[in-house]
Amino acid sequence: MEEKDLIKPGDYVLIVSKKDDEYLVRIEEKGNFSTHKGFIDYNLIVGKPFGSIVRTHLATEYFLFKPTVYDFLRHIKRKTQVLYAKDLGYIILRLGIRSGIKMIECGSGSGSATSAFAFALYPDGKLFSYEAREEFMELAKKNLDRLGLTEVVSFKNKDIEDGFDENAVDAIFLDVKFPEKYIGHCYKSLKNSGNLCVFVPTANQVSDTLKALENHRFFKTDVLEIFLRKYKTVAERLRPDDTMIAHTGYLIFTRKYVGEENE
Amino acid sequence: MEEKDLIKPGDYVLIVSKKDDEYLVRIEEKGNFSTHKGFIDYNLIVGKPFGSIVRTHLATEYFLFKPTVYDFLRHIKRKTQVLYAKDLGYIILRLGIRSGIKMIECGSGSGSATSAFAFALYPDGKLFSYEAREEFMELAKKNLDRLGLTEVVSFKNKDIEDGFDENAVDAIFLDVKFPEKYIGHCYKSLKNSGNLCVFVPTANQVSDTLKALENHRFFKTDVLEIFLRKYKTVAERLRPDDTMIAHTGYLIFTRKYVGEENE
Amino acid sequence: MEEKDLIKPGDYVLIVSKKDDEYLVRIEEKGNFSTHKGFIDYNLIVGKPFGSIVRTHLATEYFLFKPTVYDFLRHIKRKTQVLYAKDLGYIILRLGIRSGIKMIECGSGSGSATSAFAFALYPDGKLFSYEAREEFMELAKKNLDRLGLTEVVSFKNKDIEDGFDENAVDAIFLDVKFPEKYIGHCYKSLKNSGNLCVFVPTANQVSDTLKALENHRFFKTDVLEIFLRKYKTVAERLRPDDTMIAHTGYLIFTRKYVGEENE
Amino acid sequence: MEEKDLIKPGDYVLIVSKKDDEYLVRIEEKGNFSTHKGFIDYNLIVGKPFGSIVRTHLATEYFLFKPTVYDFLRHIKRKTQVLYAKDLGYIILRLGIRSGIKMIECGSGSGSATSAFAFALYPDGKLFSYEAREEFMELAKKNLDRLGLTEVVSFKNKDIEDGFDENAVDAIFLDVKFPEKYIGHCYKSLKNSGNLCVFVPTANQVSDTLKALENHRFFKTDVLEIFLRKYKTVAERLRPDDTMIAHTGYLIFTRKYVGEENE
Repeated sequence: MEEKDLIKPGDYVLIVSKKDDEYLVRIEEKGNFSTHKGFIDYNLIVGKPFGSIVRTHLATEYFLFKPTVYDFLRHIKRKTQVLYAKDLGYIILRLGIRSGIKMIECGSGSGSATSAFAFALYPDGKLFSYEAREEFMELAKKNLDRLGLTEVVSFKNKDIEDGFDENAVDAIFLDVKFPEKYIGHCYKSLKNSGNLCVFVPTANQVSDTLKALENHRFFKTDVLEIFLRKYKTVAERLRPDDTMIAHTGYLIFTRKYVGEENE
Repeated sequence: MEEKDLIKPGDYVLIVSKKDDEYLVRIEEKGNFSTHKGFIDYNLIVGKPFGSIVRTHLATEYFLFKPTVYDFLRHIKRKTQVLYAKDLGYIILRLGIRSGIKMIECGSGSGSATSAFAFALYPDGKLFSYEAREEFMELAKKNLDRLGLTEVVSFKNKDIEDGFDENAVDAIFLDVKFPEKYIGHCYKSLKNSGNLCVFVPTANQVSDTLKALENHRFFKTDVLEIFLRKYKTVAERLRPDDTMIAHTGYLIFTRKYVGEENE
Repeated sequence: MEEKDLIKPGDYVLIVSKKDDEYLVRIEEKGNFSTHKGFIDYNLIVGKPFGSIVRTHLATEYFLFKPTVYDFLRHIKRKTQVLYAKDLGYIILRLGIRSGIKMIECGSGSGSATSAFAFALYPDGKLFSYEAREEFMELAKKNLDRLGLTEVVSFKNKDIEDGFDENAVDAIFLDVKFPEKYIGHCYKSLKNSGNLCVFVPTANQVSDTLKALENHRFFKTDVLEIFLRKYKTVAERLRPDDTMIAHTGYLIFTRKYVGEENE
Repeated sequence: MEEKDLIKPGDYVLIVSKKDDEYLVRIEEKGNFSTHKGFIDYNLIVGKPFGSIVRTHLATEYFLFKPTVYDFLRHIKRKTQVLYAKDLGYIILRLGIRSGIKMIECGSGSGSATSAFAFALYPDGKLFSYEAREEFMELAKKNLDRLGLTEVVSFKNKDIEDGFDENAVDAIFLDVKFPEKYIGHCYKSLKNSGNLCVFVPTANQVSDTLKALENHRFFKTDVLEIFLRKYKTVAERLRPDDTMIAHTGYLIFTRKYVGEENE
């Protein structure tokens, strides 16, 4: 086993009991961590391989998993509504977000989309993340910092009434209250054939966005929603969970085109 | 406008009419491309910016979009059932697939998952893609080649009865008929805390996989399915499409843990 | 076996092959019926018990099932969009449609809702079915006639600009293009505490209807949609169908109340 | 206004506040009813028209709606899992349940399906409702009694190991733990071309039931599930509720046929 698989101070660990009591914890050099079922001394964790089991002082077992971006997304500290992996994964493929591309998002919110995009852009892509409210920007920064992906993102604490600073970006993700006001700005900042995604919670906003898109050179517009339905994991009694998330938001995708004259 | 935005021979272009007649085409130096509404000479395309409009010899307009990974996935040449972006995007986030990680998939099939994973692993990750049938492996290679991501993937034309050649991989994606037979192999090849995803079309396979997982050290198992519902994009008459894809497959996610003794 | 179970001329029979080639047929005294796999002489059908199997002149087996209201709904002759059993069944329970109540619907359309409501109202309920276009009304009548439930329904070939002729009805079902224009008429014709259901295909119509409801004494408004997902019926490979109906319409339910003064 | 619209002692009333605090109450001659926002004297209710508003002694307004079968179903007293209107409405249409037909259900459970079927059978149909546990049967009776539909139902406090007492029924609804054990009994008690519906919560039970159906003369088997998704009722911000019921059960429908010899 290579050393990098052993947990060291500063690492984030997903600590989970058999009953699914779960924490995303930054391991410290000293001290301990308090679960619902007793304390775990950080000493017991440091040096253990990821995937190990430790016991609290009350002898309850906890797993020590290495978090993936999915875990960071689930445990994001939030002051706003956040985006879910079901939506973000699709957005990443649909916008073609990967190392090497340049993109804009607005607003940063609590940083859930920021984190997922930074993950996909790593190592050589770039995200310009706009957020008018400083409080949210600081939170988004903190959430991104946990993933260790801060260098991929430039935060901009400003509103976008006058547009974005960047040009010829590959993609833009818009998660704002009145997206219809910024479609022109998006058009201007996208490179030719660039991709736009707008995320809105209400059907009325979908209609307003569609109307605004008609006034600019966008084509191949899609509106869609994504559902995720979980099952109880009992082999002999397989059945869906009783309840599910029924709505997060509508996704609108579209593409910039240029005229025949390419004005 | 930078030169790289101009279409050149060898580029793939998504050619789309206003009526959504759509082609994913590799642009050649000479000759022409035949649409349902007439020919387009490659000469007319080369040198144009992505996002432009050209006309066929019958004067029908076509858009020249730069394809994203999503377009390549939609236009994959297939001999097997393929995976969809709604599932693949979620899998990428859930397994934490990004530049720098090492993973296995089996089987390659037509290369849809292969392409999406290669996209996410770019530039410094690695995918070992197993496929027993040479015919499929060649197809998966061809589909991957269109994306220009072949160096991220090592294809292995062998069955996995005796397990995988690699060890300590970060993640495994299993899309085979009898996944329950290979859970032990997956356990062996995953690094501690590594992530496994199994994709199966039937509920019976889900039960069989859950049973097999009970015999190995896997925890935090989730079973789920993802739906995507599209809307008609008319602002004044917003409504879902009449029909939708109702099922692609069930996704099973789980994580390897090690004993307290770490045998 | 009682005689009434034997098929006689005038009966409707659901004729189905093993490959699900299906017909809803009125049995005649003489002649024959043409399937995709050969002819069946009515003589072979008359006198057989429902549930029997007959063979065409090409020896293909067909089942002779007694149709339920569900089968009539599926085989309705249509010139308009029709309602589906998934929606109609819920509407019947929600509006409390049963023998003894009095209700209004508008418009009759092809008579799918008419047929389901008549079925539920039988024997002592009453449906007043408004339809402005004579062509549709005649079709709705024909479809209802096949069910043998004409006496439960009074058709009215008139538009509802000036309201309904009836008062103090228990329930109203509104399936028109601009429901917001008729909410006042509905209020007037409903008895106190009466139930209204509005069916609309678009989200914009839902918003328009909700706005109109605010101007009248309606309460406990619900908006909802119902999905039905079928499975392939193979015990060893249980899985949903590949595609499904994704949308028929939105259902809006609400209830009339009266002021404290009961003006 | 006719007298029957005025609330009298013995009537059930759906009492609802503007904040959707809701009760299904039997009105008594004397005394009062306690809400979360104060008392309402029955004197204030008796003689009022349904649909009226009353105030508690704390001046909170409550609506007095006349409950429909849907309200009784929602407010059923339960000791078992109950069926929902979305499923029951569809079952009624699919099985063709209406005045004049004869059907069996097993088991009665808390009486939710019993109530919906009795509602649909009224006035001249008949339901034989089997329930092995007396405790549940008594509860089902009580719930049915509130609807005033007891004469439509014959309860049978016995298990069905040896089959049903009735023959030639039009339809059977089976909601038991091991439906595969009773398919033969269902076949025997159904009339030719009769309809069977099996309700089960797990996918494994669906497979087991499908296997059992293969051993008897049933055809046109469908397996399906029904979803209901609610919306927030704000005209300017139309959007689905955040969560929804994701699963109640799978519905299996099938039809009895007889051999060519009609053995």
